[in-house]
Amino acid sequence: MALLDLSNEVAIGIDIGGTNTKFGLVNHRGEILQKGSLKTTGYDKVEDFIDELYNKIKTLVDMHPEVSVRGVGVGAPNANYYKGTIEHAPNLSWKGVVPFAKLITEKFEKPCSITNDANAAALGEMMYGAARGMRDFIMITLGTGVGSGIISNGQLIYGHDGFAGELGHTIVKPGGRRHWSTDSEGSLEAYASASGISITAKKLRAEFPSSILNDFPEDEINSQTVFECAEKGDDIAKEVFRYTGQILGEALANFVMFSSPEAILLFGGVIKAGDYILKPTKLHMEKNLLPIFRNKVKLVTSELDEADAAILGASALVWEK
Amino acid sequence: MALLDLSNEVAIGIDIGGTNTKFGLVNHRGEILQKGSLKTTGYDKVEDFIDELYNKIKTLVDMHPEVSVRGVGVGAPNANYYKGTIEHAPNLSWKGVVPFAKLITEKFEKPCSITNDANAAALGEMMYGAARGMRDFIMITLGTGVGSGIISNGQLIYGHDGFAGELGHTIVKPGGRRHWSTDSEGSLEAYASASGISITAKKLRAEFPSSILNDFPEDEINSQTVFECAEKGDDIAKEVFRYTGQILGEALANFVMFSSPEAILLFGGVIKAGDYILKPTKLHMEKNLLPIFRNKVKLVTSELDEADAAILGASALVWEK
Repeated sequence: MALLDLSNEVAIGIDIGGTNTKFGLVNHRGEILQKGSLKTTGYDKVEDFIDELYNKIKTLVDMHPEVSVRGVGVGAPNANYYKGTIEHAPNLSWKGVVPFAKLITEKFEKPCSITNDANAAALGEMMYGAARGMRDFIMITLGTGVGSGIISNGQLIYGHDGFAGELGHTIVKPGGRRHWSTDSEGSLEAYASASGISITAKKLRAEFPSSILNDFPEDEINSQTVFECAEKGDDIAKEVFRYTGQILGEALANFVMFSSPEAILLFGGVIKAGDYILKPTKLHMEKNLLPIFRNKVKLVTSELDEADAAILGASALVWEK
Repeated sequence: MALLDLSNEVAIGIDIGGTNTKFGLVNHRGEILQKGSLKTTGYDKVEDFIDELYNKIKTLVDMHPEVSVRGVGVGAPNANYYKGTIEHAPNLSWKGVVPFAKLITEKFEKPCSITNDANAAALGEMMYGAARGMRDFIMITLGTGVGSGIISNGQLIYGHDGFAGELGHTIVKPGGRRHWSTDSEGSLEAYASASGISITAKKLRAEFPSSILNDFPEDEINSQTVFECAEKGDDIAKEVFRYTGQILGEALANFVMFSSPEAILLFGGVIKAGDYILKPTKLHMEKNLLPIFRNKVKLVTSELDEADAAILGASALVWEK
């Protein structure tokens, strides 16, 4: 009886990005019954955005009279789990501290949990992805930026203020490359994000005029085009990923000596480069580990469909409660 | 009635060091009823050491017929919490994997928990010291080496294999100073431990012949003598601590962005240098933090008596169970 009730429950998962917001109805098994999206931009007031979001989601819910909605989970940049707020998110138009979870609860009349997108992704992987059954792992998202979610003892590490897990902003090369938005020097994100890879590629192609990376216009140099050049045998393109992988691997070694995870999960556009980046990452991670940690930590890539992972992760917040 | 029973219980805390082993009977309030010590060295077989340890502790317990022993907690280098083992500890004479907790339980006929000394120290601080009431903090022990214990959500982070929290071995200056025992390059321990400070001081005094650090013979250059020189106004001695504090502060910033602790607790001989090291540590920690973490993390020094802290920490393992 209890099991039957459970199977009729769904969670609403909402992933808020700088440009688009994706949402879906997700059941306990991680199946997305319905999904949709809307632009995040163009709403001066956050309440107007939430009204439109509500209307779109209500349409989806109405298509499934057999289910009951348990709650709403939201993944968003600069989200604070404890306070339910989105705080000073540089890529969103609502400035200051937005009481997002409270606004959602008032409109949807359902409990709402909120956390940053990488934390949500880590929960999604633990419930439905490559980290099923793991109690200790670190999720690293390598996209435009570098995000992270840390699971220890089967729980997300939120820290005392809800902001834990900003591993992209740890300094891996003191005095190194200046970050375009934080102004820090030598952060992981400055090298291992898609933006960082593009900077590295532009530097290297300038030094090596024979590289076919020079066949592309400036604004087309990104991890995808670097990958294409590597596939065509360009050594400079391969060096871009080797260099990035070295820095990523050195950073991962430090993370391992912090929380000793069973696995590190990599997710995001950058890892489409496959072994070009994964092999040097693994090599330099192992090289920088104390012997007691060596050859123990799995380096795995996400199993979730990229388009759905964010929705699944956000929905996982509902069941975690 | 239950409360009365509780107040009669004591935990045995044992701290195993490379040279000496300290032990004590500790009650719930963190009062050490009795304590003692014995040499760690000179026992070819670990069983002989445990026999001697048992005899010494039994004498103490027999002096308190009113108490009942709840269990035994052990802090030891390279201790594995999950397996109850001490594994390949470089400073102990028992080689390989020693099933220490099992041997203690067989001899003492009490449950035994074991973890590394810095983890035990963190538990001790949470129960009896400067971290009372905190659910998220990081303990850094700055002694001969650099150890760490990480508390998140009110729990020690052990990691999937029981070895989490080796922050002294994280790399803070890639390609930097080679570690005397691990061979790694640029670890925190290579700079911020007593041994690291001594290396820095020897380098700097060689560059600056006018420094009064040059009045000491080579083998007397340590954090204590450097402190004495700083107190006498020697700028080079002050620079030793400033340089050390900068590196420590940069490392702490990275740790904060991992688990977002409420406080970082510093403990050990090195912090006797006070503001000479604490001020630059704080300065460079704040400087390297993302804005959302700034001016939030307390940098505090341990309140526990150094001689007792290890015993208290080990005993805290018993109540944690």
